[in-house]
This record gives sequence, C-alpha cells and structure tokens, in this order.
Amino acid sequence: MTDGPSHLWHPYTRFSAVHAGLPCIVRGEGPYLYEASGARYVDAVSSWWACSLGHSHPRIVRAIQQQAEILQHSILGNLSHPPALELAERLAGLMPTPDRHVHFASDGASAVEAALKIALQYAHQTGHTRRTRFVSLKEAYHGDTLGAVGVGYLEEFHRLLRPALNEAWRLDVPDCRECMDPDCHSLCFAGVPSFLAEHADEIAGVIVEPLCLGAAGMKMYGPGYLKRLADTCRQLQIPLIVDEIAMGYGRTGRMFAYEHAGIDPDMVCVGKAVTAGYLPLSAVIVRDDLYETFSDVPDDHTFYHGHTWSGNPIAAAAALETLRIYEEESIVARAAESGRVLAGELASLKTRETVQQVRCLGLIGAVELKPDAETPPRARRVQHLLRERGYLLRPLGSVIYLMPPLNMEIEDLQQAAQAVKETIEAAE
Amino acid sequence: MTDGPSHLWHPYTRFSAVHAGLPCIVRGEGPYLYEASGARYVDAVSSWWACSLGHSHPRIVRAIQQQAEILQHSILGNLSHPPALELAERLAGLMPTPDRHVHFASDGASAVEAALKIALQYAHQTGHTRRTRFVSLKEAYHGDTLGAVGVGYLEEFHRLLRPALNEAWRLDVPDCRECMDPDCHSLCFAGVPSFLAEHADEIAGVIVEPLCLGAAGMKMYGPGYLKRLADTCRQLQIPLIVDEIAMGYGRTGRMFAYEHAGIDPDMVCVGKAVTAGYLPLSAVIVRDDLYETFSDVPDDHTFYHGHTWSGNPIAAAAALETLRIYEEESIVARAAESGRVLAGELASLKTRETVQQVRCLGLIGAVELKPDAETPPRARRVQHLLRERGYLLRPLGSVIYLMPPLNMEIEDLQQAAQAVKETIEAAE
Repeated sequence: MTDGPSHLWHPYTRFSAVHAGLPCIVRGEGPYLYEASGARYVDAVSSWWACSLGHSHPRIVRAIQQQAEILQHSILGNLSHPPALELAERLAGLMPTPDRHVHFASDGASAVEAALKIALQYAHQTGHTRRTRFVSLKEAYHGDTLGAVGVGYLEEFHRLLRPALNEAWRLDVPDCRECMDPDCHSLCFAGVPSFLAEHADEIAGVIVEPLCLGAAGMKMYGPGYLKRLADTCRQLQIPLIVDEIAMGYGRTGRMFAYEHAGIDPDMVCVGKAVTAGYLPLSAVIVRDDLYETFSDVPDDHTFYHGHTWSGNPIAAAAALETLRIYEEESIVARAAESGRVLAGELASLKTRETVQQVRCLGLIGAVELKPDAETPPRARRVQHLLRERGYLLRPLGSVIYLMPPLNMEIEDLQQAAQAVKETIEAAE
Repeated sequence: MTDGPSHLWHPYTRFSAVHAGLPCIVRGEGPYLYEASGARYVDAVSSWWACSLGHSHPRIVRAIQQQAEILQHSILGNLSHPPALELAERLAGLMPTPDRHVHFASDGASAVEAALKIALQYAHQTGHTRRTRFVSLKEAYHGDTLGAVGVGYLEEFHRLLRPALNEAWRLDVPDCRECMDPDCHSLCFAGVPSFLAEHADEIAGVIVEPLCLGAAGMKMYGPGYLKRLADTCRQLQIPLIVDEIAMGYGRTGRMFAYEHAGIDPDMVCVGKAVTAGYLPLSAVIVRDDLYETFSDVPDDHTFYHGHTWSGNPIAAAAALETLRIYEEESIVARAAESGRVLAGELASLKTRETVQQVRCLGLIGAVELKPDAETPPRARRVQHLLRERGYLLRPLGSVIYLMPPLNMEIEDLQQAAQAVKETIEAAE
C-alpha cells in the first residue's frame, strides 16, 4: 500500500479508493505482480489487457535493453530506422492483404485518432467532401482523446463533453452472440445497410471493436455481423476501421478478432499487446489503396500528422521480439486452447441465481451479475474479496471478467477461475 | 539510405522525399546520429525537440535497462508503482506552487487532450455548464489528435478537418518580440481582456505555447504578454493551460518558459524532453484547486480518463534519471549560456539580403528567409546542402532553425552555427 498523500492523478480511479490505499507494485514476474512487502497478486486482467505474455519475459527484457544501448530514439520524419522499418513490414505481413503502410503512435487513442483523420482526409481527396462523420457502435470504446470519445459511448459522465465532440452516428449493439454462423441473417443487422446507404455521402468511415465491446462490459457478438458490416462498407466504398487494440494479438483465439469473420479491413488499429504491454506503441495499418491517395505529386496530399515518438526504436524492438515469441511459442493457438478450458470452468456459474450471463470468447471469461441494490454493489465486493485472495480484477459495472496473460499455465488459469467462482458464490 | 519500398508511413513526410531515399539511422551518440555506412549527422533539431541530452546518455540508458529488469509495466488504475509516484512528486515540485497532481499519458497530444477534458469537466462541476469552448493563439500547435487540432492552427491542409473539430476562438499572435519588459502595455494584448471578459461564461480554458510558437516557425513573443494573459485568466477564473511540451525543460534558458513571466499556470503540459526524448511519456500537471473538484464524495466527479501506459515504469525511470542529470549537470544554466553563444553567432545573418529576421530565445536559433519563388524553395535547398555537410535540420516553411541538444559542446554549437551561416550565404 502507498503511504500518505501522493501527487499522482490515477486514471479511472475514484478518490475514495485512493484514500483507502492502493497496492504499490514494485516488480512483476510471469502472471504475478508484487508489492514491496512480498504480497503477490495474479494480474488477472493483464494490466489493462496489454501484458499478454505476463511480466519480465526475459527475451523482451533483453530486446529492450539491447536496443536501449544503441539507439533510443530517432524520428521518422524524413528519416527511418531499422526497428520501425522491420516492424512495419511484420505488421503489414500479418494482414490478409499485406499491401499496407503502417503509421505509428504511442497511446492507443492516438492510433484511433490517426485512423479517423486518415479517413477524413481520404474522403476529401477522393472527392467525397461531405463525408465528415463516422459511424460506430453504441457503447463502443475507442480511447479517451476527444476524437476517440466522439466515436465512443456516452455514459452520463461523458455527456458534458458533447459540445466538444464530432459525434458519430451510433448503431445498436449487435445482439447475436449465440449466432456464430457467418451466413446468418440476424435481425440485429437488418437495418444497418439501409442506414449506411442513406447516409453514405456523409460517412467518412465506420469504426468497430471486433466481436467484443470491451469497456462496455465484454459484450460479444458473432462474426456474421462483422462480415456483413464489412461487405456493406465495401459496397458503399466507406472505409472500415477495425480497432484491434484490445482484441488483437490472440485475445479472441485468433491473431486478430476480425479473422473470425474472414474480412480484410481497410484500417486496423493495434496497441496494448503489440509490445506485450511493456512500452507505449500503437499503430494503424492502412491498405495501400487508401495510402496511395496521400501523394504529394502532382498536388500535395501529404498526411501532415505525427507524434514525436512515432515508431520509437526501443518500443519497436520490444514489439518485434513479441512477434517472434508469438510465432515460436504458438501463443495464439495456446490462447485458443486455454480459452476452451476457461469457458469450461466458468460454465457452472450460468445456473447461479445471482448470475445474469456468462460470456466467453478466446481467453476472455466474463460473468455478468444480476442487478443488485447493495452498497457497495456486489461486483465491487467480489473485487475486494478477490484482491484479498491475491487476484487483481477490475469489474466493468456488474461484469466480472478474467483476461489473463495468454501464456498463463493451465493450472494457474483453473485456479483463477475457481477463485472467481468461489468468490461470486461467497458474495451471494 | 533505405533500399526499396517499405511499409512505413512516415509522419510529416512527402512521398517524393520517401521516393528520393531517406537516411536510415542505426545508432546515436551524443549529438550525432549514424547510418550503417558510418555516415554521421548532427541532430540539430534534437529529434523533434525531444532529445535534450543527446543520444545514448549512459546514465539514462542504464536507468532504462535497470527498470526493464524488474517492472516493465503495471497500470495506475487503482494501483501505483514507485517510478510514477516519485516522478509525479518531482514534477509537482518543479512548479511555483507544488500543490499539484500529475496525470500521465504517452503522446504529447494525449497530455493536451487530458488538459482540455479536465478543463471541460472542471467547468461543468463548478457550475459553469456553458463553458465548452477554448481560446488559443492563431498559428498555435498543440498536437495532432482532433481535440488538439481544434486548439491549433488551420493551414490549408487542415481546413478539411473543420467539421470534426470543436474550434477554439483564436487570438492574434502577439507581435511583441522586442519587448521583454514584463510591465509593457503592448498593443498586441490590448483587445484580449475585453474579448475574454465578454465570452468568459463560454470559455472552458485558454491554452498557449509559452513565448515561442514552435511549429508556426519559432514565432516568439515577450513574457509581458504571457503575464497579462495569466492575470486576466485568473481574474476571470478561466483555467490557463501552458503547453511546455516543446519549450519546457530548459529550451528557453529556464526550466519552463513560463518562468520568464513569473506566472503560476493552472495546468502545465510536458512531454518530449521529459524522458530526454528516449521513451514516450507526457503529463499534465494540475493545480490542486482544480484537482480537488474531481472527488467522488458525495457525488461522483471521477475523471474517467486514462491511457494504458499512463506513467509506464520504464519511461518514468528514464524521466527520473533525466531530472537528476539536469540538476547535477546544471543543464538549464548551461543551455542559457549556450543560447547566448548561438545568438551571437547568428547575429551577423541579420544584415544578409535574403534574411527576413533572426530570432533567438534560449537554445533556439531561428533564421527566417525572405519569400522566394525558387523551385525548390531556398529553405529546402539550404536543408539539402546542410544534410550533405552532415547536419539534419527541418525548416518550417522559410524558417531555418537550430534546436540542438542542451548539453552540446560550445565548440560543436559554434561549428553548427557556422555551417548554417555559410550554407545560407552559399544558397543566395
């Protein structure tokens, strides 16, 4: 626990929690985070869904240390450097069509902002000058900068930002979780094509979290919806931006969640696990048919956009080593297998009286509790009880979820699921 | 030079420059960047004004390597860790009134976005619900995310973004460069108090680059203007956000540029040199009278905002070592002294026929060339000639400037200034 007042403004943290005292983490090892006292916690949410390979992975640590020795930073404005060149090539190569260019940022939100601005400028320079709005899903989350909030959801505490936003048109959250049939004609998609067609000349882009709306409480939907959405966008020549910042890099049991739908998005945003969560790096991976319209010949259509640390060499070196580990240790296949185990473990909760729904996808296991009027709410009580047992979780409203490192041992995963089950039952 | 096509989308770079071939940097050492061939360049703009201590500083490299060994990342949502706690305390302690809290991001733009959102939410929760707009300077630059662009300037290529922006009201760029008298009553400020007073109930905040508008072409103004602006904001109870991302950390000869004006800003944004430019980290440092309104007791006013890597331990460790070096090696005093040498070296350019103006402040030396109709423009030709001589510069329009590492040896600085002078003369 931290002692006394600090000068740190904690993100997404209530003052009352700060005053009650927060665990102070001094080191990490595998799935564990440690306080100075030796108290050990399982990082059951992978440090905001980012540390997909756990902590202190010796290969990534070494990659960081080695790159730090020779080139810490050099900008990509009219220059290049090997780690950024290689990483751009690797990321493009992971896409269904690798004819792509990769624009780097540091915060996930900044990658989303780059994608939005690319879409706006692309619309403009292809003659669609009225295409200035976006379409997103209700309850979506794409980051906290103002452009990203504009395509995100608006809970009560976000409403005050409205005058500062270019608000997206919002589609209903698909309700087709049970339908994994890519040929489905789900009702939830029924109204989408006509809406998009009607407003096509005003829509610069459509942005979605693929298959799972994370911050909304792990709300999941089937690949059939995503496939149809991509097809409709393609027909209407509206760029589709798929935000894989949370769901990419194996979390859903495929390298990218959009692969479940067999689509080829115009832009893909990545972040979080891209460096195994160790250093800030994000990117938007853009199809060349969009990229090529940004030429300065004959007229200047250059993308005058960029951040200081775009493609930072040390972070890029961590990202490259992460990809090597993913490949050599078959991390994605392992996550898919572990996900089946997790889903099996949590299944018995479905019949509990306090449980609304159990939702699993890849290595995400979410348990939504029924509404309650307790103080503190039951989910918060579960969180505190789990912390006492050495598990760090962050419920989203009444949704308790596990998103552990993808390389967690099966036995540890089973123990974590068991702890969640026992705690939910104990809190009834 | 890079060989063949790459998949990297270079920020702020024309396709024609990419096609002509860009230097590929493989290592850095002091003020120098090297290609694999051994070709050596002086990093005369400190890698976008960030690498204030040059490259491969052994102490910062060691700090990165050591922190990478023990804790690469852990979030600050309901947790803390020593590097972030210590860095927040150090940054608060650098302010005139250290009763502050520090909110971390990674991209500079993300820190500005946090400041804007804090101002909006602060206005709302102090009853000023109509305060939803910002005031900034014409030609200002605060970053490239959409919120930051809204308070930035709008050159031709930014106009297309207008429908997506909450556009700030823009004050004329102060034209009081020659007036360093804090008691001046410069005409350029004359209309500002009445404008702010008239719109006070609609203004959530005022944001400025202190003393020098960097991206606009190193346009400088005196501290008298900034002092009056701060006083007016304080009278009207409008928060003042000072963006020290480029000008802070000694660049102007003081630790922060606002110190020249003797003011105490409500919010201060830092980035770039905060980690000596080695790793992505930015922050907004907020007075506690604002911070304290974000309590969740009795009603919930929590700042639901944050980025994954907020206060990343490795970047924070680099930032802490940077501050130690600044202190132990008197970097700021050294920059002030070097700045006087640079200004002396460039002074003779003032009388050249092709030179419009020479502007110096701290360790910034800017030479604005007169308009020309050459192809390529003369400034671009100067840039290319300097690159051939081993100096990497990035002119802003017709403005050629030096912003070298603050710890550059005086002799190297004199040589760089000499190279700039000779090249400008040769290009006449």
